[in-house]
Amino acid sequence: MTKSERRELIKAALGYNSATLKIENANLVNVFSGEIYLANIYIYGKYIADIVEVDKDSNKKAEKTIDIQGKYLVPGFIDSHLHIESSHLTPYHFAEAVIPKGTTTIIADPHEICNAMGEEGLDYMLKASEGLPMNQYYLVPSCIPSVVGLENTGSEFDAELVDKLLDKERVLGLGEVMDYIGVIHNDKRMEDIIDVAYQKKMFLQGHSPELQGQELSAYLCGGPYTCHETRNGVHAIDKIRKGMTVDARESSISKNIRGIVENIKNFKSPRNLTLCTDDREPKDILEKGHINDCVRVAIDAGLDPIEAIRAVTLNTAQIYKLDKRGAIAPSYFADMLVIDNLKDINVEKVFFEGKLVAENDKLLVDIKKPQISTEKKNSVEIGELSLEDFKIKAPIENGKLEIIGMEYISKFTSVTRKKNFIVDVKNGYVDLKGTDLNFAIVINRYGKGTKSIAVVENFYMNRGAIATTYSHDSHNLTIIYKNPKDALFAAQRVKEIAGGIVLIENEKVVKEMPFPIAGMLSKKDALHLGNDIVEMNKILRDYGIETASPITRPSTLSLIVIPEVKLSDMGLIEVVSQKIIKQF
Amino acid sequence: MTKSERRELIKAALGYNSATLKIENANLVNVFSGEIYLANIYIYGKYIADIVEVDKDSNKKAEKTIDIQGKYLVPGFIDSHLHIESSHLTPYHFAEAVIPKGTTTIIADPHEICNAMGEEGLDYMLKASEGLPMNQYYLVPSCIPSVVGLENTGSEFDAELVDKLLDKERVLGLGEVMDYIGVIHNDKRMEDIIDVAYQKKMFLQGHSPELQGQELSAYLCGGPYTCHETRNGVHAIDKIRKGMTVDARESSISKNIRGIVENIKNFKSPRNLTLCTDDREPKDILEKGHINDCVRVAIDAGLDPIEAIRAVTLNTAQIYKLDKRGAIAPSYFADMLVIDNLKDINVEKVFFEGKLVAENDKLLVDIKKPQISTEKKNSVEIGELSLEDFKIKAPIENGKLEIIGMEYISKFTSVTRKKNFIVDVKNGYVDLKGTDLNFAIVINRYGKGTKSIAVVENFYMNRGAIATTYSHDSHNLTIIYKNPKDALFAAQRVKEIAGGIVLIENEKVVKEMPFPIAGMLSKKDALHLGNDIVEMNKILRDYGIETASPITRPSTLSLIVIPEVKLSDMGLIEVVSQKIIKQF
Repeated sequence: MTKSERRELIKAALGYNSATLKIENANLVNVFSGEIYLANIYIYGKYIADIVEVDKDSNKKAEKTIDIQGKYLVPGFIDSHLHIESSHLTPYHFAEAVIPKGTTTIIADPHEICNAMGEEGLDYMLKASEGLPMNQYYLVPSCIPSVVGLENTGSEFDAELVDKLLDKERVLGLGEVMDYIGVIHNDKRMEDIIDVAYQKKMFLQGHSPELQGQELSAYLCGGPYTCHETRNGVHAIDKIRKGMTVDARESSISKNIRGIVENIKNFKSPRNLTLCTDDREPKDILEKGHINDCVRVAIDAGLDPIEAIRAVTLNTAQIYKLDKRGAIAPSYFADMLVIDNLKDINVEKVFFEGKLVAENDKLLVDIKKPQISTEKKNSVEIGELSLEDFKIKAPIENGKLEIIGMEYISKFTSVTRKKNFIVDVKNGYVDLKGTDLNFAIVINRYGKGTKSIAVVENFYMNRGAIATTYSHDSHNLTIIYKNPKDALFAAQRVKEIAGGIVLIENEKVVKEMPFPIAGMLSKKDALHLGNDIVEMNKILRDYGIETASPITRPSTLSLIVIPEVKLSDMGLIEVVSQKIIKQF
Repeated sequence: MTKSERRELIKAALGYNSATLKIENANLVNVFSGEIYLANIYIYGKYIADIVEVDKDSNKKAEKTIDIQGKYLVPGFIDSHLHIESSHLTPYHFAEAVIPKGTTTIIADPHEICNAMGEEGLDYMLKASEGLPMNQYYLVPSCIPSVVGLENTGSEFDAELVDKLLDKERVLGLGEVMDYIGVIHNDKRMEDIIDVAYQKKMFLQGHSPELQGQELSAYLCGGPYTCHETRNGVHAIDKIRKGMTVDARESSISKNIRGIVENIKNFKSPRNLTLCTDDREPKDILEKGHINDCVRVAIDAGLDPIEAIRAVTLNTAQIYKLDKRGAIAPSYFADMLVIDNLKDINVEKVFFEGKLVAENDKLLVDIKKPQISTEKKNSVEIGELSLEDFKIKAPIENGKLEIIGMEYISKFTSVTRKKNFIVDVKNGYVDLKGTDLNFAIVINRYGKGTKSIAVVENFYMNRGAIATTYSHDSHNLTIIYKNPKDALFAAQRVKEIAGGIVLIENEKVVKEMPFPIAGMLSKKDALHLGNDIVEMNKILRDYGIETASPITRPSTLSLIVIPEVKLSDMGLIEVVSQKIIKQF
């Protein structure tokens, strides 16, 4: 706030300036006192000037009055951790989707787009979120690449670059330090990157799935102090007790809130509990909701509604040191929601910085769609390819061959096992006809020219080829296929549309979803993209992929931080030993 | 923490480095979860490395083990607001006194010494608190002088100087913005000074006695967001609800905690409640305690012990953004107390940054007493004085005269009324013989040469002269007397001893307490100074001054922010109109 803003706000509090908005008959949820009582709220411009109990109001003048007739008024909700890229929406289309759900502030980790585009990725997200009727804060991804030396990515972030990026506006600190093994083993790269943020006294986001006991303590001693990867509710007890912030997650895939709440609901108002969405698909956002849905789940699981609301308001604001957000109080930004009841958390009105921006699930304001050059750039740099590139050349001409490959342990998880297969070789190439196996290829899409092919079981692709440039964490081009001709066609098509997800059969496009921005973001809005995803998923199920989110399944193949064996553009990777292994 | 400190701490958490200290069988008060449970704590150097429930401990190695046999272990206590000068102790003697009481961190406003000595005052406090086995953080006083143009002080702080002082190490922000009238009336001086701290995102301490409703909101809109002047418990409700931090105070004189707690004890864990001592005399500290006494009173008044402990640990740490303080958790500074029970809060052991520094009310470590030039400087700059200076020259030669003066409304308050007296004039001078009236004089002690005399009723000084250089807020030399000869003698004596409190009768020293440092701090330790004060107070009571703290009564005469009429070196001041008024 500037000096003159404070001067005019003081005058508004005292009634010398007319309030720009008065909200009458609010059932105010006070996150400081933990009470709920009837109050009128005077707003001046972006800020709250005064709050008066209804029966004590002397009725100062206001340019506009909204009577909310005893409905609940709560602070605007803050999502403590998410990746916008998981929605495949641009920051502005993402805003359009989540604002009507009551999300007025997010802290986003642009880990995916920075893997692909480096600093330009962060700059794009910052530019594409300028002037929105919500706050989008960003973190600097800490683990790019997630593992060094096992894949060629679009970028590498060292301590020096991180240092520079941390100084950008709206950047609050370091994004999820997912290399927790590196941290507790004093890996130099992680030490240096953490130290940059530590010395600047900036936020340090953690990521420590399954850590507990002394390993958890060690991780905390290393610097990061939050975690959104608490899948086991019992671990939440250990984390809360140790002062780690538990960002209880309810993404499209991981549903952790209930388990966490059931374990900690009797704690006395732990202020190191927040809620987050992490990764939510557009359809999920539109239908189930966004962070408001997390609040609903937390209350349903038994958390006191005041504590559930604190978890997405004051707690998060304090942990991120967001001054003047997360509460309804004089001098605070007037980010507020009208909700119907403290069970369903249906958001009826959304105020951002004193302005009504959404009502009854409809956005009321225009969202700027800035012209940004990154949106016109084709990030898919793949050289010329031939059919040969999609075949596995065998060391024998014909016969049976033992080959090491990947086996998914089920249709529903990302976890794979290393497995030895006996395959046919015809005319010098591995032939998978008549088997349930698929080929998989990861092709570097950042102009490095590297690629590698392997055999995979239980991916459950029964025909055609599925190609994606949204492929964690490097986001190289991953294709899983039966037929090399389809795979070649898919690669070429992906290049033409500048990235996305493409399903090919018999060298024809069955269905495609272009992600022309960084190979991971669509130009469509949430409704249209959501419908596209639903349709694509339906088709993919018919092709055999039956997970909760079929479009994301191809991206699990290259996720070289999840055991036991994965594929990168450099080869078949044994995750635990962090080694490239030979197929035969 | 440096990178290498974190590296070694990680190793300690994992048991590769021996812990430097292990505390066994602690009944740990966990301020995050609000639980109490048996745990062992591993400390490495200054920090906590790991915490393990007793029955799950695998017993990592430790150089030293202390078994506290089920006693309570709580985080070191933080006092959210105090003035060291009120104790008349140097920062290091103050530390000696409060550490055994469990105060490991204070945030001090050096308002008094900066009034007298300007920047040198702050620098002195910072130097005199270097390397202590406790944290002394400082604020930059915001209101020096407290009122502009009505008195000549030792210093003036404008925005430019405040800006510079805020950058010093261990300075957290702006000290109590006591000119709340100025703030809500957009006084330019206050606006500019607040803005400096606001733009640096530093702490803004408030002071808003009796403010409530829209005036309180207006004050909050002006910037400051804490208040330790909540004398009326009902106001605490308004403040907590509005997000203002209530620093509930229990000073030697103002006992506010009980009234506040009784009003807000049913709030759900308000994190904007802290406790503070503000002004405590040495005897009080030694006998009743320090911030531990505040915790005791809060619990006795009905506050949940966990909330009372949070109020002096995590709450304060969060409000002041003191990272890694205020809780017992891995990576936190090992500031911890062993207490006997959760009712009496008797502090049995004090650990500061991993080291046992006090036990059973005894300090175990040496306190550095640095050589600082300020301690050798006589800050009392008064020119030559004569008997004439201590008499009121009347406009008539002999007879009766109407004169405007001050009347204390009771023996116990600082509040005065303006009163017209009829006095005798003999040989051209006012003569108070045979009346209950006293003369009062305020003499500038910063070389300005200004002084003024008035008549005061109900001060209750029945003979002699009492002189003090500790005289709020300007700390000029104030003398109240019956006999001008005694007053002249007193002034000369004060100059000789470089400031302090001197009681004179018949031109002889009855009792004196030298405050040679800035005219307000003693060189004695708490025990000796405390005994001195007790003795001086006993004598002063005999001289008619019967308030709770007789030595402080003379300083209320020049307090030109308390109604209705006070005396400064520039004349008789009408407080509300902020005007100098004529005596006749």
